[in-house]
Amino acid sequence: MVRFLVLYPKPDNPESFDRHYREVHIPLAKKLPGLRRYTVSRGSGRVRGGDPYYLVAELDWDDRESMQLAFQSPEGKAASEDVPTFAPDGTLSMVFDVEDV
Amino acid sequence: MVRFLVLYPKPDNPESFDRHYREVHIPLAKKLPGLRRYTVSRGSGRVRGGDPYYLVAELDWDDRESMQLAFQSPEGKAASEDVPTFAPDGTLSMVFDVEDV
Repeated sequence: MVRFLVLYPKPDNPESFDRHYREVHIPLAKKLPGLRRYTVSRGSGRVRGGDPYYLVAELDWDDRESMQLAFQSPEGKAASEDVPTFAPDGTLSMVFDVEDV
Repeated sequence: MVRFLVLYPKPDNPESFDRHYREVHIPLAKKLPGLRRYTVSRGSGRVRGGDPYYLVAELDWDDRESMQLAFQSPEGKAASEDVPTFAPDGTLSMVFDVEDV
């Protein structure tokens, strides 16, 4: 399984961020082809170290090829282009294979 | 479900880090009471923004109480005390409820 992990820094206006994320971004991202699972954090709290991120989103695909196809699709472009409209400070994003240990 | 997300910065010596993580830390963390799932990243790559983290670990429990009990247990203390021995630069850790959207 391949995971796309997105960490959003604390927004200037959390209410507006939350509303856009819930009402616009989730519906856009759920249209991504091949998406197997999509989870978001509730009640994130920093434990130790680093920047205090506000929201953690995790999107899973079967493999890298499926994820690539999703990112290149019109749905992928729409979801990607939506991000700067509600997260102007950018995100920290990572892609990795998930291994159960 | 409650998730403990741990981001490790790139170590000075990745080989030594990998060996300790695999041979010492995973066995310690797998002993945590109530742990439901434990995954690690393979082939992490930064997509955009922020610091390039080296390893992503995710540990899941049924609820916050189970996680708290695990952290307070002797096994939790042993796993926690092991971290600075192989990750002297610290980690970014977050705890949050996981919501499927």
